[in-house]
This record gives sequence, C-alpha cells and structure tokens, in this order.
Amino acid sequence: MDLYTLHKAHVLTPWSAQAALNPPLIVRGEGAYLVDQEGKRYLDLTSGLVAVNLGHGHPRVVRAIQEQAQTLCYAPPSFFHDKRALLARRLSELSPWPEGARVFFTPSGTEANEDALKMVRTLTGRFKVLAAYRSFHGSTHGSSALTGENRRFAAEPAVPGALHFFAPYPYRSPFYTLDPKEEVARALDHLERVLLHEDPARVAAIFLEPVVGSNGVIVYPEGYLEGVRRIADRYGILLVFDEVMTGFGRTGAPFAAQRLGVLPDLITFAKGVTSAYVPLGGVLVREGLARRFDQEVLWAGHTYSGHPLAVAAGLAAVEAYLEEGLFERGRLLESWLKEGLGALWQKHPFIGEVRGLGAFFALELVKDRSTKEPLSPWHAPLSPAMQGLVRALLREGVYVMAKHNILIIAPPLTLKEAELEAGLAALDRALRGLEVEAG
Amino acid sequence: MDLYTLHKAHVLTPWSAQAALNPPLIVRGEGAYLVDQEGKRYLDLTSGLVAVNLGHGHPRVVRAIQEQAQTLCYAPPSFFHDKRALLARRLSELSPWPEGARVFFTPSGTEANEDALKMVRTLTGRFKVLAAYRSFHGSTHGSSALTGENRRFAAEPAVPGALHFFAPYPYRSPFYTLDPKEEVARALDHLERVLLHEDPARVAAIFLEPVVGSNGVIVYPEGYLEGVRRIADRYGILLVFDEVMTGFGRTGAPFAAQRLGVLPDLITFAKGVTSAYVPLGGVLVREGLARRFDQEVLWAGHTYSGHPLAVAAGLAAVEAYLEEGLFERGRLLESWLKEGLGALWQKHPFIGEVRGLGAFFALELVKDRSTKEPLSPWHAPLSPAMQGLVRALLREGVYVMAKHNILIIAPPLTLKEAELEAGLAALDRALRGLEVEAG
Repeated sequence: MDLYTLHKAHVLTPWSAQAALNPPLIVRGEGAYLVDQEGKRYLDLTSGLVAVNLGHGHPRVVRAIQEQAQTLCYAPPSFFHDKRALLARRLSELSPWPEGARVFFTPSGTEANEDALKMVRTLTGRFKVLAAYRSFHGSTHGSSALTGENRRFAAEPAVPGALHFFAPYPYRSPFYTLDPKEEVARALDHLERVLLHEDPARVAAIFLEPVVGSNGVIVYPEGYLEGVRRIADRYGILLVFDEVMTGFGRTGAPFAAQRLGVLPDLITFAKGVTSAYVPLGGVLVREGLARRFDQEVLWAGHTYSGHPLAVAAGLAAVEAYLEEGLFERGRLLESWLKEGLGALWQKHPFIGEVRGLGAFFALELVKDRSTKEPLSPWHAPLSPAMQGLVRALLREGVYVMAKHNILIIAPPLTLKEAELEAGLAALDRALRGLEVEAG
Repeated sequence: MDLYTLHKAHVLTPWSAQAALNPPLIVRGEGAYLVDQEGKRYLDLTSGLVAVNLGHGHPRVVRAIQEQAQTLCYAPPSFFHDKRALLARRLSELSPWPEGARVFFTPSGTEANEDALKMVRTLTGRFKVLAAYRSFHGSTHGSSALTGENRRFAAEPAVPGALHFFAPYPYRSPFYTLDPKEEVARALDHLERVLLHEDPARVAAIFLEPVVGSNGVIVYPEGYLEGVRRIADRYGILLVFDEVMTGFGRTGAPFAAQRLGVLPDLITFAKGVTSAYVPLGGVLVREGLARRFDQEVLWAGHTYSGHPLAVAAGLAAVEAYLEEGLFERGRLLESWLKEGLGALWQKHPFIGEVRGLGAFFALELVKDRSTKEPLSPWHAPLSPAMQGLVRALLREGVYVMAKHNILIIAPPLTLKEAELEAGLAALDRALRGLEVEAG
C-alpha cells in the first residue's frame, strides 16, 4: 500500500471528518518551506500552526537534538537535569518580570493551561476563572472549559467554574461602537459587571490571549489589557496570559507581555519555545507567586514534564532567537506584512480587514465589505469559497491556516523578504481567482 | 550559579513542595543506567516512570531521531506525513483486533485519555463514564476526573459524569474475601450494581488499566476483565484500556489486552511507544468504531498531534521491539523477577506482597504482615521509613519509583540478568538497613 493510502487507512486527523481529506503528504522541511512526497514545495506562511518560529531545519536546534538524543532522551522529572536548569534560567531572564520566574514544564500548550488552572485555584483558594469568548486555550477538558469557541463543545459539560466574557473586537464590536476608546471603556465596564455578578472575591484568575490567536488575531485596542490588569489588582485576581501563540518573538518581543507593556502573573507557553521541533510547553510563574510552592505541594505532574530532549531543543532554540536577533525581527516582518497585506486589501474587496502586529496577522474575509457578511460562517464547516481559496493556495505552493473566514499569516521569523513577496503574489492570484468565480 | 542551584531556583518539580527536594542531577543515560553530574550511576529499575522500555540510548531510536531531526521536525497535523502513516500501520498490526485499528496521536498519555473520553461520548451519545478507584489516568482535568486517587483532587470539582467503582484488590479486598474467585464474582456484582443505579443506558464507557499501574501493579484475578467485557457488551458500553504503562511489551506482549486475552474497544497509550525518547501518546480505535469518523467530525486536536519527530522515534522503537524480540522478553524478565523478588519476600517481613507480571512488579511494604499496616499511609506524604528506603537505594545507585507504601519494579525490557541481580542485592541491603533501624 502506498503511504497516502496507509495514512488514510490508519491515522485519524484532528478536527475533521476523515473521508474527504486529501492534503499533501509532507516528507521534508527547509527554512520557510515544507516539501511533499512528489517534491512539491509549499511556502509555510503560518509556521505550521503558528509554531515553527525558526523555520524548518534550523541547524543549531537540529544539532542540539542530535547531540541530546545521543546523551539522554529521558529521565523522570523527579530527578534534576542539566539542560532543564539552563532553559529555565533563560526563560526566567526572558520573562517580563523584574523579580524573575520559575517554570513548570509540560509536553504541550493545553497541558500548560490545565496546570495554570490548577495553580491559580491553589494559589488563591478561589474557584471561578474567567476567559474570553472567541478564544482558544486548548482541547483537553480544563483548557477546553476556558476556550471561547466551538472546539469546546465536545468537552462539555465542562469543568465547573470556567466563565466567559466578551473582550474587544473592534471589527465586529460586541459593545456596539466603532470608536476604539469607547470599545475599551465598554469592554472594561462589561468585565466589571460580570465580576460583580459573579463575586470578584470568588474569581481566581482571568485567562487571556494577549493577542487573540486562532480566533482571528485580534489586537486589543490600547488601554484594554492595562484596564484588565487594574481590575484584577483591585480584586486580588491573578492574570494569566496564554502566550502559546504569541510567545517567542511572534509579536516582535520575547513575549507579548513585553510588546504590549502589561504584566500578567503567569504565562503559559509552548510552540515557539522549541520552534515546535520537540513537543514542549510550560507555565512561567513570577517568582513571588512560585515561592509559595516551596512549602506547599504543587499538585501537577506529567511523565514528560521537563523532558530532556525537549528542553535541550528549547535551550538551543532560545539561544538561536537571541543570537540571531529574532525576537526583534518580528518588527521588521510587521512592516513588510503591513505594507504587503495592506496592498492586497486595496485590491480585494473580499478582504474585510487586515490586522495584526509583529509576524502575526490575519485577513478577515467577507462577502461584502459593507455588510461584513463572513465568507465562511462562524462555527460551521468551511464554505465552498473558503475551501476553494485554500485549495488554490496549495496549488500555488503556499500553505496558510484557514479558520472559518480567517486566514492567519504568521510566517517564520527567519522569512526572507523575497519569500514573503512570492507568497503574497500567490495570495493575490488566489483571491483574484475567487473573485472572478464569484463574478 | 551551579546547575543544581539554578534548577532549584527556576524549575518547578511535579507533585512536590520544592524546598525539600534534593535528587541527583542526571546528565546522561546508558542502557539500564542513568548517570548524574558527578558520574555516579543509577540502575533504573523503573524505566523512568515505567516508560523507557528499551533502556537509555538505544542506537536504533537515537539514529532515527537524529535523521528525522535533519529531515523534518514538525508539520501541522492537517498535512499527511510519511512516518506517521508507517507508525500507524505498525500500531494497527500490533493492536489486538483482527479488524485492525486507526490511531489518533497525541503528545502524551493524559491527552490520549482526554481524547478517548471525548470519543466515547461522541460514539455512544451517552454521557457517564466509569473508572476504578485506585487508578491513575492522567492529571489534566478530563483524565483527572477518571483518576481514582488523590492526584485527582487538585482538578476538582471535576468534569461532570465521571464515576468510580471498586475493582479487585486481593491483598486488601474491597469485597471482604480472601478467595480470588469470590473476589471476582463480588467485583462484577458490584460493578453491575453501580451500573443499575446509574442506568447502564447512560454509560458511554468503562475506563480500566488492564493491570493497575502506579497505584500498585494490581493484577486482576482471572475472570475479572472477561466479566467486565461481558457486562459492557450487555449494555452497549465501550471498554477502554488505559495501556499507557502496560503497552509496548511491559506485560510480555505488545499490549496487556493480548497477554490477558481480553479485547477492549479503544486503547490509550504513550510512554513505551517511543521508549519515552520523544513525547508521544495516542488512542487506538478498533476499525469498526473508527470508521464512524469518516463522515462524523472528530472533535479533537493538538498542535503536536502526530508530530513528525515523535512518530519517527515511535516507528524506530516499534521496529526495535519487534526485531529484538522485546515484546516477548517481558516473560523472561517475569521469571527472573518472580524468583528474585520472591526471595526478598522470604527474607524481609516489611514486604507484605510481591505481585506483577511481565516486567511489571510491585512490592507492597507493610509495618507488619499480619495487620498489613502500610509502611507509608495512603494519600499522605511519604513516611520517614519510606523516605529512608528511597534514599538508601539512591546511595546504593539504584532508582526505584516509590508511591506511598509501594515500590514499582519495572526495568527496561533490555535488562541483563546480572544487572537485575545487582539491583536486587542493593534492594536487599536497603531493606535490611531499614529493618535494623526499626529494631
């Protein structure tokens, strides 16, 4: 049996009905490109799933994996480990807190949010947690409960105590305004109202993506995160930033907390920490809070917590980001993306909005700019138009993650300007094709 | 700062208050040994956390990781991948079902149980799930809800609908009998009673470790698992075996399902699939059930699902097990362990019971064989006696996982007889020391 048939026969692919699947079969990666079994190259404009921040095959990380594989792949997390100590120090240095931080390592981002949920309840002795609608925090039952979209539903009835509120979304304001200042004021008022009806003294934490990720790269208008921080402080509520997507240079800084100038109490991370080369995630806890676990038992653990091969990859990745100036390079990509995507917006009425920062942008596609009707409805299967667009892009040799009516453009931080230009030209042609079809 | 101080300053270690920790700092692995920064060697008699079934540094898996690191570390799971297809076929061939199986890959065992929980609810349209007390299924909120011991409590209030029953435990029978046949009959009657009071038509699945893992390597008496299968069939309930510990040769067969001759409907796995060299887990679903996802959306997914580096390691590990006859070698280790641990039982009154099968054994330690009072109380911090024993073993250069009053002896399947003898001699001396101290 050929590989393709074998895959269809024996692998279950996420978030899909299996019968209709027919993606490329990828066998190789090189820089910004994925290569399929026929040798066709795909420009990876979403870094996998906003994860491969160093591009594919970064020699420093590859070498670190090869060396660590030879030395030690696994030891139980009850033992200390050299690379784990070194990566944890690096992460503390990179963290936004002057007091530094400690790290609890997990195998993935969803497990990081699971553990953060347990930690904030332990640390505060409070039970309720708040998260935003139109958010994704993971697909296991605890992080699903935090998630504010339809990937939560299969894990319902959810873990009790996770509640949702609306956060700003200027393009489709839940607060009935077009003015960003009013959007922020109303969003903060709404959050306070929810808290007052739930009793803020019962709320352990607010979980937020500092920039909304797979739900459309929504950059909160200025003042919102600061306001949430103030409200959290007023009531002794912890603030958790889910930086699984925004961490490790995605926004033009090590963490979005720094780019946006707002300090949470905990940060969850994954993906970029190893450029996704080895599964790794974790929770960064600011030192003042983490210290509590010196005497109190930390009731969290995983076989693969602080996995030696994974932390060795993480250590090399972090050193690569630092030495190659990649945490800052997101600002350069931001200028290219703003210009390039802005030019597409000028040409294509199907693009309702271009938004983002750093190397993290979205196109929100609409049937009509005045009605803003989505090109593919929210919480429903991809429309034929969106499917056609994704297929056209793959034919063009470009991979872009599509969710409902959103295309997420989040290329590797190592992307060359000419590569981006080629990708945007392909996107231009694919959008044009769509518009011709639509008449 | 030295590595040890750095580790203490910046890493949070699982399931612990941090201040008192002082384990070895491991930097290298070689076969059955872990090596610390001073060059001291520790015989790994628990395969890490019942995970490193091939021992440390198996050249075939190391080479596969090195080659795959060079070729492709990561691609999004929406794309097909060559090694993922090949590993899935192997797992289907190794699965206990004549109809074969499909695999949903996850980064870890707990995520496998999380996804299995979602799957059984989707597949049956039923809501309740049953699991055993004295079980561990993971520490994220869904698998915690299934877990039948104190590592669940930090994730409570739990996901609704997960209920617990008592399974056989002949050494401390929950059914008030010393006769294994009666234990089985009463355990099955108890399960039926629970089902009847919960309404079997509302129960999606029964989750079981076919051999209880970290809660004491309890081998169910003959007839129990067959009886559970019959009851499940009677009511259209799915049976899920959590084989995260028992899979991949641990019991002297690819899966415990084969060793014990009972077919579940789904199997969750992790650990042994890559010998823990790269984080990987998954759910095996028998083909007849998996087929349902051809048309129905599978509402589960992870960034690291089917991670290329992880599946490449898994493929090489499975080939190593097969070519080196390691799935069967557990039977040989069983004979050594039975004899060696049996001899210790003869000499040491602190050993209440020796039990296990394959390369998977436990010593249940007691203050007194007649009262069976545990040497360390259940659901409480390790007693000074158990702490002393663990320390003495580490001084002797032997690592054994200790939980409450249980020592878990689950060495790599590649262990040499002389290595085991040295380990058992150290265990003999450590137990002797403990007894001398106790007077």
